[in-house]
Amino acid sequence: MDIATSPLAQPFPEMPAIAGATPRIARAGYKDWGRCDLTYVELAEGTAVAGVFTRNVCCSSEVELGRENVRQGRARALVVNAGNSNAFTGYRGREAVEQIMGQVAVHLGCAREQVFVSSTGVIGVPLPKDKARAGVEAALTAEPCTWEDAARTIGTTDTFAKGAMARAVVGGKTVTLAAIIKGSGMIAPDMATMLGYIFTDAAVEPAFLQQVLAAASDRTFNCITVDSDTSTSDTVLAFATGQAGNAPLSSFDSEGADAFAAALEDVCRQLAHLVVRDGEGAQKFIAVTVTGAVSDASARKIGLAIANSPLVKTAIAGEDANWGRVVMAVGKAGEPADRDRLSIGFGGIWAAREGLPLADYDEAPVAEHLKGQEIAVAVDIGLGDGAATVWTCDLTHGYIAINADYRS
Amino acid sequence: MDIATSPLAQPFPEMPAIAGATPRIARAGYKDWGRCDLTYVELAEGTAVAGVFTRNVCCSSEVELGRENVRQGRARALVVNAGNSNAFTGYRGREAVEQIMGQVAVHLGCAREQVFVSSTGVIGVPLPKDKARAGVEAALTAEPCTWEDAARTIGTTDTFAKGAMARAVVGGKTVTLAAIIKGSGMIAPDMATMLGYIFTDAAVEPAFLQQVLAAASDRTFNCITVDSDTSTSDTVLAFATGQAGNAPLSSFDSEGADAFAAALEDVCRQLAHLVVRDGEGAQKFIAVTVTGAVSDASARKIGLAIANSPLVKTAIAGEDANWGRVVMAVGKAGEPADRDRLSIGFGGIWAAREGLPLADYDEAPVAEHLKGQEIAVAVDIGLGDGAATVWTCDLTHGYIAINADYRS
Repeated sequence: MDIATSPLAQPFPEMPAIAGATPRIARAGYKDWGRCDLTYVELAEGTAVAGVFTRNVCCSSEVELGRENVRQGRARALVVNAGNSNAFTGYRGREAVEQIMGQVAVHLGCAREQVFVSSTGVIGVPLPKDKARAGVEAALTAEPCTWEDAARTIGTTDTFAKGAMARAVVGGKTVTLAAIIKGSGMIAPDMATMLGYIFTDAAVEPAFLQQVLAAASDRTFNCITVDSDTSTSDTVLAFATGQAGNAPLSSFDSEGADAFAAALEDVCRQLAHLVVRDGEGAQKFIAVTVTGAVSDASARKIGLAIANSPLVKTAIAGEDANWGRVVMAVGKAGEPADRDRLSIGFGGIWAAREGLPLADYDEAPVAEHLKGQEIAVAVDIGLGDGAATVWTCDLTHGYIAINADYRS
Repeated sequence: MDIATSPLAQPFPEMPAIAGATPRIARAGYKDWGRCDLTYVELAEGTAVAGVFTRNVCCSSEVELGRENVRQGRARALVVNAGNSNAFTGYRGREAVEQIMGQVAVHLGCAREQVFVSSTGVIGVPLPKDKARAGVEAALTAEPCTWEDAARTIGTTDTFAKGAMARAVVGGKTVTLAAIIKGSGMIAPDMATMLGYIFTDAAVEPAFLQQVLAAASDRTFNCITVDSDTSTSDTVLAFATGQAGNAPLSSFDSEGADAFAAALEDVCRQLAHLVVRDGEGAQKFIAVTVTGAVSDASARKIGLAIANSPLVKTAIAGEDANWGRVVMAVGKAGEPADRDRLSIGFGGIWAAREGLPLADYDEAPVAEHLKGQEIAVAVDIGLGDGAATVWTCDLTHGYIAINADYRS
């Protein structure tokens, strides 16, 4: 099936080369298609790695091994297979991943644990070892490619290539971050999971890289939802090659650590938004801001309850300022809330304040706001200082068409 | 908007009169429509009452007062308003409910706490007191009506009237249960919440009635989901008039208590299934049976994760035996599960066993099963003895059309 490019798509940004991180692509032929489907990024010796992974307990071998190997903190290569998620494939799936790790490790003369593998695509079919071997072989010797080529190659049902970059000054040196991501909903069996990769030439100790990546993920990747379904393969990895020449960052006491953490979070937020913009059937990009909750965590939970509500998402698809559905979603979140203190607004205009519809509520400007592509929903709980913003897209006929109308 | 009758609709059953419970209907005119919209059921003196209510923290005054008043255990009347949910209306909404309680209490010469009120419909508009007063006045003196009339009158966006009955022999006496329900998804602002009422002529002590109602709800109403959205007004009340002449049931040691509890659960299950059959846009009725979980509660949580997954529900709408999406939903439930012990089947045929797709899996009979209206999904976790069945419907263009395409 052909899926039209998302109306919320953004052009691929100008992306700089990252010293010590060289992407290459090849065609393994995991599916019967003409495109490249294997991405290989070679990383300089000493590259630090950090990762966050799906909490889905039925995860793939790639996730299991990645979670294990990220602990030793160093990486020399990344391999991403598109077209086959290798999930739910038992020991045969694991053998295929270990084969790739071994093959690349021999080529680079590094430890197998320093080779990170991701796979995305059809579920329940072990990654074919012969195709993987030939694909990796071709990628190892291919010409370097652009980040845009790499972003396109890791994609499956994505409707546009997604990348982000940022810069920060760390100890007098400018460091650069370049990042790519794929994902547009948890599509199975074409398991279009979220896979994100961030490359930087900054020198960062692995433990600190893990700390800032985990914190940034919590405020970005963990604050987006397309359809509330959690993939078996979600992975975000950050690689720091150390080629920028800054004194290695080891904690927030290091000079420039705050700037680096801010740049990393900026890149993560850009990537997270791009995934929502490619959400299946998305016509509108929705930011839900919750304030006045008893804690930030409570605010995020309420925000996700709103962002995951099919009734809220269909109302916005219908350009209907249906604050009653938002009230319902706040109430079902199971977090402290008081009906009589609750305020709900759209596009900066309150529709209801402290438990009552506004007497002089003028729906016209709100209706105008809802006709746009960027929708802002504001909820004030009126109980404390907790705040969070989460992002989602609307729920449209396009989602049903992609997931039900076509047999996969 | 006109919504076509659900293809899963069932005819209204033959429903007996219940001694001591007399339904009447009237037209309050809460909306600009020609139909009756106020239901009044007069209950004999000494009628026991039990209730279960929504856990949504933004609940209506009706729910707050009902939850409070059910504790004293006795009821003389039920009033149900259709067309206005009276939710999110602050003190003015509460005054309207208290007015109705007072009006009926004066008429019957009973305590106000023995008058139970529910409302369903538009949110954010206080129930108009003048219309309520005139409607109640008309209902108090109206001719008795049938249960089918009452079922139709409590409905809002329901596409068919829903009722169930059962009988049990209790201490040598035959007792009868008649029950009605409304609901087809948490539609707001036409808040089509689930409101269910069970009437029986059995003599039952209130505390025991509460005990068996709560247990039955856990296995029936709490095991259905249409869209994962929880209404602000969900209420199920059971009334036992005691006119059958049996020795009052006060515990499971009472003669016939087991038979009564089984009949009550039977009625609750029938009602719960009817709500799913009227689920917004439903084309298929889906039973998800989970076995082998570490506990019954864990099995139910896994079952609900599957039943709430938009990707599972769209796959079934597309008649696609997509067991990979079921694996994903099991994994995201957050309950103990082991990918390598997991089995998934449809219509009594396993597609995957113990973590691997079956080598000789024949999809043809499964595809045939998925073409039907009654779909069975089986999941064996392979870890313990916990089991549960939950029921849902598929997610179709009809759901989007009802909730997004039409402005309400």
